[in-house]
Amino acid sequence: MPSILVIHGPNLNLLGTREPNIYGKISLEEIDRRLIEFGVSEGLEIRTFQSNHEGAIIDAIHDARSWADGLVINPGGLSHYSVAVRDAIAAVSIPAIEVHLTNIYAREGFRHKSITAGACRGQISGLGWRGYVYAIQGLKTIIDEAAH
Amino acid sequence: MPSILVIHGPNLNLLGTREPNIYGKISLEEIDRRLIEFGVSEGLEIRTFQSNHEGAIIDAIHDARSWADGLVINPGGLSHYSVAVRDAIAAVSIPAIEVHLTNIYAREGFRHKSITAGACRGQISGLGWRGYVYAIQGLKTIIDEAAH
Amino acid sequence: MPSILVIHGPNLNLLGTREPNIYGKISLEEIDRRLIEFGVSEGLEIRTFQSNHEGAIIDAIHDARSWADGLVINPGGLSHYSVAVRDAIAAVSIPAIEVHLTNIYAREGFRHKSITAGACRGQISGLGWRGYVYAIQGLKTIIDEAAH
Amino acid sequence: MPSILVIHGPNLNLLGTREPNIYGKISLEEIDRRLIEFGVSEGLEIRTFQSNHEGAIIDAIHDARSWADGLVINPGGLSHYSVAVRDAIAAVSIPAIEVHLTNIYAREGFRHKSITAGACRGQISGLGWRGYVYAIQGLKTIIDEAAH
Amino acid sequence: MPSILVIHGPNLNLLGTREPNIYGKISLEEIDRRLIEFGVSEGLEIRTFQSNHEGAIIDAIHDARSWADGLVINPGGLSHYSVAVRDAIAAVSIPAIEVHLTNIYAREGFRHKSITAGACRGQISGLGWRGYVYAIQGLKTIIDEAAH
Amino acid sequence: MPSILVIHGPNLNLLGTREPNIYGKISLEEIDRRLIEFGVSEGLEIRTFQSNHEGAIIDAIHDARSWADGLVINPGGLSHYSVAVRDAIAAVSIPAIEVHLTNIYAREGFRHKSITAGACRGQISGLGWRGYVYAIQGLKTIIDEAAH
Amino acid sequence: MPSILVIHGPNLNLLGTREPNIYGKISLEEIDRRLIEFGVSEGLEIRTFQSNHEGAIIDAIHDARSWADGLVINPGGLSHYSVAVRDAIAAVSIPAIEVHLTNIYAREGFRHKSITAGACRGQISGLGWRGYVYAIQGLKTIIDEAAH
Amino acid sequence: MPSILVIHGPNLNLLGTREPNIYGKISLEEIDRRLIEFGVSEGLEIRTFQSNHEGAIIDAIHDARSWADGLVINPGGLSHYSVAVRDAIAAVSIPAIEVHLTNIYAREGFRHKSITAGACRGQISGLGWRGYVYAIQGLKTIIDEAAH
Amino acid sequence: MPSILVIHGPNLNLLGTREPNIYGKISLEEIDRRLIEFGVSEGLEIRTFQSNHEGAIIDAIHDARSWADGLVINPGGLSHYSVAVRDAIAAVSIPAIEVHLTNIYAREGFRHKSITAGACRGQISGLGWRGYVYAIQGLKTIIDEAAH
Amino acid sequence: MPSILVIHGPNLNLLGTREPNIYGKISLEEIDRRLIEFGVSEGLEIRTFQSNHEGAIIDAIHDARSWADGLVINPGGLSHYSVAVRDAIAAVSIPAIEVHLTNIYAREGFRHKSITAGACRGQISGLGWRGYVYAIQGLKTIIDEAAH
Amino acid sequence: MPSILVIHGPNLNLLGTREPNIYGKISLEEIDRRLIEFGVSEGLEIRTFQSNHEGAIIDAIHDARSWADGLVINPGGLSHYSVAVRDAIAAVSIPAIEVHLTNIYAREGFRHKSITAGACRGQISGLGWRGYVYAIQGLKTIIDEAAH
Amino acid sequence: MPSILVIHGPNLNLLGTREPNIYGKISLEEIDRRLIEFGVSEGLEIRTFQSNHEGAIIDAIHDARSWADGLVINPGGLSHYSVAVRDAIAAVSIPAIEVHLTNIYAREGFRHKSITAGACRGQISGLGWRGYVYAIQGLKTIIDEAAH
Repeated sequence: MPSILVIHGPNLNLLGTREPNIYGKISLEEIDRRLIEFGVSEGLEIRTFQSNHEGAIIDAIHDARSWADGLVINPGGLSHYSVAVRDAIAAVSIPAIEVHLTNIYAREGFRHKSITAGACRGQISGLGWRGYVYAIQGLKTIIDEAAH
Repeated sequence: MPSILVIHGPNLNLLGTREPNIYGKISLEEIDRRLIEFGVSEGLEIRTFQSNHEGAIIDAIHDARSWADGLVINPGGLSHYSVAVRDAIAAVSIPAIEVHLTNIYAREGFRHKSITAGACRGQISGLGWRGYVYAIQGLKTIIDEAAH
Repeated sequence: MPSILVIHGPNLNLLGTREPNIYGKISLEEIDRRLIEFGVSEGLEIRTFQSNHEGAIIDAIHDARSWADGLVINPGGLSHYSVAVRDAIAAVSIPAIEVHLTNIYAREGFRHKSITAGACRGQISGLGWRGYVYAIQGLKTIIDEAAH
Repeated sequence: MPSILVIHGPNLNLLGTREPNIYGKISLEEIDRRLIEFGVSEGLEIRTFQSNHEGAIIDAIHDARSWADGLVINPGGLSHYSVAVRDAIAAVSIPAIEVHLTNIYAREGFRHKSITAGACRGQISGLGWRGYVYAIQGLKTIIDEAAH
Repeated sequence: MPSILVIHGPNLNLLGTREPNIYGKISLEEIDRRLIEFGVSEGLEIRTFQSNHEGAIIDAIHDARSWADGLVINPGGLSHYSVAVRDAIAAVSIPAIEVHLTNIYAREGFRHKSITAGACRGQISGLGWRGYVYAIQGLKTIIDEAAH
Repeated sequence: MPSILVIHGPNLNLLGTREPNIYGKISLEEIDRRLIEFGVSEGLEIRTFQSNHEGAIIDAIHDARSWADGLVINPGGLSHYSVAVRDAIAAVSIPAIEVHLTNIYAREGFRHKSITAGACRGQISGLGWRGYVYAIQGLKTIIDEAAH
Repeated sequence: MPSILVIHGPNLNLLGTREPNIYGKISLEEIDRRLIEFGVSEGLEIRTFQSNHEGAIIDAIHDARSWADGLVINPGGLSHYSVAVRDAIAAVSIPAIEVHLTNIYAREGFRHKSITAGACRGQISGLGWRGYVYAIQGLKTIIDEAAH
Repeated sequence: MPSILVIHGPNLNLLGTREPNIYGKISLEEIDRRLIEFGVSEGLEIRTFQSNHEGAIIDAIHDARSWADGLVINPGGLSHYSVAVRDAIAAVSIPAIEVHLTNIYAREGFRHKSITAGACRGQISGLGWRGYVYAIQGLKTIIDEAAH
Repeated sequence: MPSILVIHGPNLNLLGTREPNIYGKISLEEIDRRLIEFGVSEGLEIRTFQSNHEGAIIDAIHDARSWADGLVINPGGLSHYSVAVRDAIAAVSIPAIEVHLTNIYAREGFRHKSITAGACRGQISGLGWRGYVYAIQGLKTIIDEAAH
Repeated sequence: MPSILVIHGPNLNLLGTREPNIYGKISLEEIDRRLIEFGVSEGLEIRTFQSNHEGAIIDAIHDARSWADGLVINPGGLSHYSVAVRDAIAAVSIPAIEVHLTNIYAREGFRHKSITAGACRGQISGLGWRGYVYAIQGLKTIIDEAAH
Repeated sequence: MPSILVIHGPNLNLLGTREPNIYGKISLEEIDRRLIEFGVSEGLEIRTFQSNHEGAIIDAIHDARSWADGLVINPGGLSHYSVAVRDAIAAVSIPAIEVHLTNIYAREGFRHKSITAGACRGQISGLGWRGYVYAIQGLKTIIDEAAH
Repeated sequence: MPSILVIHGPNLNLLGTREPNIYGKISLEEIDRRLIEFGVSEGLEIRTFQSNHEGAIIDAIHDARSWADGLVINPGGLSHYSVAVRDAIAAVSIPAIEVHLTNIYAREGFRHKSITAGACRGQISGLGWRGYVYAIQGLKTIIDEAAH
């Protein structure tokens, strides 16, 4: 069964309580539960990880080399400056998709560019928690195609 | 039955023959066929439209006001400069999602910013033709939620 | 009787329904009616034209060479990038005045510069539909002075 | 009877003698006379003020709070850097329209942006002394509408 | 007999009457006549096309895929922003050369960069209508070499 | 008894009436009264000065050389461009602290940089009228330390 | 008794030994001791925290949600790039004030902008360790006012 | 006898006491005395003027139209932003030379550009008070040549 | 018989051996031979010159004043920064055309602008050694027209 | 015996497996072994440290104050934004040399500048693992010279 | 007798014939003759040097170390990019003054900044050949003062 | 025996006398002597070359094609603008390493970028004359590896 790691970056642990008018009312635990459930229905193992530590996120990406077939990553604020996270994504050979809950193009100017997205297969932004679902769907296709 | 308009911008009519190493080998007709089929399975009417004319795309967006519940738009090269298309999306009250077949962050610098995405709910890039599917899924959710 | 062409660019056909909090509630038809009426009172023939097509706007500017004595143009979103429309205005020898319904300086940064205004005699922004009236008044003066 | 303050910024006192090929041959006194006359015909009291001192202009804007219903301001060179004048316009609750005699978009690059216009209702540039007349017309409408 | 499509972009239909001090006094019809004549002498079929519509230009480029061996394009003002035209040139496998009548480096700053030239084999600017002739010569060589 | 000059720049005379949602409801007279009172309690003479004139502010800074031991300055809009005020602060040997009532980092982009702060010991922004109090406290410490 | 968390970012643990000509000779322990003492005198509980880890600082900000009424933060070098810390401050509903020991405007250009300050109520820079004291005073006022 | 006006801008009244390591130890009074003396020796009337007020400097430039044959101006910090002073210099038909005591190219980056110099005949910087002497010499030549 | 100087800038002496995948396999000697031959057929004297020294190129341009009727120049890397070469071209009254073997728009960003082209009549880039031929053809026309 | 700390930043633990075409095939363990061995031959104690955590790297730099005589640091992706790491290097009095395995000037534009190098004695890039050896040699010289 | 080297950079050998409307009609030989004559009258040896070669100019600056007491340099177009010439001026301990015949602030934007002036004592621009005289006067003062 | 060419760019001939606080007290002759000696010990022929002439440096790089196996180059000030030197390095197939005596990142902003380094294998800066030694070591490794 293919495995996918879902990484949530800084501040995403506060989902549901953090600026709900911007980020929505659903908690991260609930999102993770739904993603795992969705994985079950799709025949995928979904493991989730959240950290506010850039280094821990890099460690988790590295660790995934030994077991994961795909990577969904919401780097949060790190997207806009962390060359180190970008390098981590590029350093492992796992296909990755970047997710943002909100539409980064409709917010402050410093959120309009992503330094990390260039190392991913693609990016989904502004579609809320379902963005993770679509990213998992996208990875499933990539994994399936690579298997043939 | 909710209706969704899918707009393909300049040069997308050449899909399958146009730089297939970048854009893939599937034709636009085939993509449209799959999207309509997917719409059927989801209880959605999908109408598609392609034009190489900025003005025709704006006209189509305007026209959609009278019948569409959602808008999927791949503005192609127009994404990077067309304030007119952005204004059209903002001018109608239909929720819109921008789609790019390729990862705009992994290409030339002038493709890293989107002038049109700021008027959409979100953006999906780099996931190939399935990006349209995910956008339709996303719109279905938005339409359903708005209906309650 | 001097003739003036009034050109409305992309999305202005939606006036009245388009983001009325920004653009006001009056329709384009009503604006055009008032301008024609104003023209009558001033001894001017006013012809109006709206298009969402950059090319059609250029065609209309070219066509005006054979009959118009003045040009009022609201290029809409095209103002911010269309060198082609700028070149069209410069290419004909008809005095032109640019009009924007809203104050472009009080909106997003990308609206703060106009690429087309440099080819016009002047610009009026932020005064709503009456901006067209003032532009017509301004052109009447220019036409009258040129006649002496 | 509604009252409108017309402020002329630095160097406008030299009108008629200053670079007449750029700014025209009419003197400021003559412009003021015409504006007052126009005010009479429109049922408006027009008071005019010219200063080369940024501070005096700010003082005049402040003073207008007690008597003026509208403000026409040609900040001259101050337009391009004076945050203090911008703040003054924003600080009083009087609707303001910025006027430039020449088309600032057809001159040196540093004149293409206006720091003060963002605090006004709109801007008129390039239409010579009649730009003031149109601004007064515009304010009359705003004042009339606010009165209803 | 090899065929070459010559595309003239916005405002080039006005050649001869448009700012003749900048663009010269020869009409587009006369240029086209000379190019066709030159083609005859070189054993080349020359077809010409002019449009003020970005979309029509893209359509023409697409259409050329079925019959043309080379493309000469003067995108006019579109050169400086139209990613869509650039993408069209890149999307078809026909060698292209960009032509400008005037020297874009000796004019306003916004004309110093070309967004479309990067998708062409080369660019000729500032040599008047003869620039088209040289471009046709250049394409003939490319076509001949490709034939061996 | 050490003396401190508090300078309020352009538009601060309108405090209490000027955009109270941004700047608060307290008047400048009341602020000055509180600062003088605070000075009494701290054994400091506080003199205050307000002007909308850049030149008068420079004059006041110069004048302070003969009597003041510290300078608190809120340059208002001048902060963002007045090299002349910066030079005045640097030209006198009196320690200075810049104060802004509002958080300049949470407003328009052109307020994010201060040209004057570089010539001061420090800057306090966003803490309302109490920012002046803290600046006076800070200067008292600097004066006391210099006295030892 | 209201509680305030004081966060010291990277390298501040070296205070007293680190470039004392720039940062002063007082140690962080001594600063913390004085702040706690000051808190006692003001009826405030002061807790302090230092870390060189961006993630640990974000964790601490999150943790403060359950007990703190105010936040004083000196993000050190993180101020200039950490969108993640900015997001953390914005994500919790605790009023925050940014403090810098040195005047960031009088140092290298890359220190002139703060990415974190925009999420705070205000910023104090250049006033040494007393900047923390003023920040605590400022928060006390904010807390008191919110309590009424 | 030709007359020359020498204008000293903001903060130059402090010469001799202001940052003498940068600006030198000679007072403005002494400089003026020497310039007048130099004028006598050259058959020139030299009048000097100093102000910290941008507006007063503009007034003085205007006033010079009626009596001065040349203008030497050290705009001080105003050089770097005052479009109003630039416009004043351009508005009068008197030849002007800009002088800076220090080498503006060897100081902070914001001093490297002069907005006012473009309206002058030339600029002298970094040669101390003698820069004024050279400027007077230069003007004498211009005046003499214009007289022939 | 009209004479044309062809100047090859730095590194062009290595043609044929230098990065042949970019610059082609033909040697400079062969190019020069072909150009001279072409000149013979056109009734033109062609002299060629190559140097890696900016100064020698300027000297050659100066020298051409006494004998050349036209100038073809490939400034190589100097195109992107040498104001001195630009000034040399502008300083002599000989019409000049700039040539680049490769398409400068399809290479690194620092090659996209030419500082020298602004002083030429036009520029040809990306057409290989034949670009020189077209430039000679273009100059012949200019020389012929000037002769009538 | 002098001691040197070698710090490897984010992702360097993956050396040998990470993009070997860019970074080479040698593992970090092997590099460290060689450096220690080299240290033995030079009479130097070499200690190595790797972390993906910015904070841990700062901690290690701080810790080195008590025992190290020199610092070799490859900050990886942190080089391009981490003011905090730069501050850490500047905060300790140990001479430091920055090392990059690859030539940062021959990669993406965002790698062309280093924010951390300014706080070091020098930088070595593009020489692979031997860059560390040269840095150690360089530090040995600095340490030896400081000892005299 | 003190000696001064006057260096004329690229293209200045053409003075009198080169764009005389910009640079004047006087030849370089005549300027040099006047400067030498002026030197005689001031008790100074003036040696002059002109080259179109950046390297020769650097050599001449180096050579001057053994005999010159002052340096006047008009780097021509090199001013705007030659870090090498700047370094040469800084490398020798001879006071230098930069001269430009024309006002660089009143010409193309790329002439507004000087990379070389920062290594000089000052700069004179726009005063024609007399600018050299003033520079020599300025150096005489510096040399005399250094002698006391 | 492999041969290496060491090129010293503009102003490096002055080493030892030129700003010794920045560049050190050792002369270039002494550096060259040490490098040759080091070469002997390593079984390498070292030839050195210094010039202040960009063109002569390019010539020397070209010449090295026939005999050198490696290139060490300190382009001095040319590093920051000479595309011509960059092209020369890229044009020959000899591995090159760029050396700077000082840390270019700790000096003026215009020294922070190197246009030439992108064509080299790597860069060493800030390590004084020993930087050349390390570069030679690095080249020896590259040459040895290429030999296997």
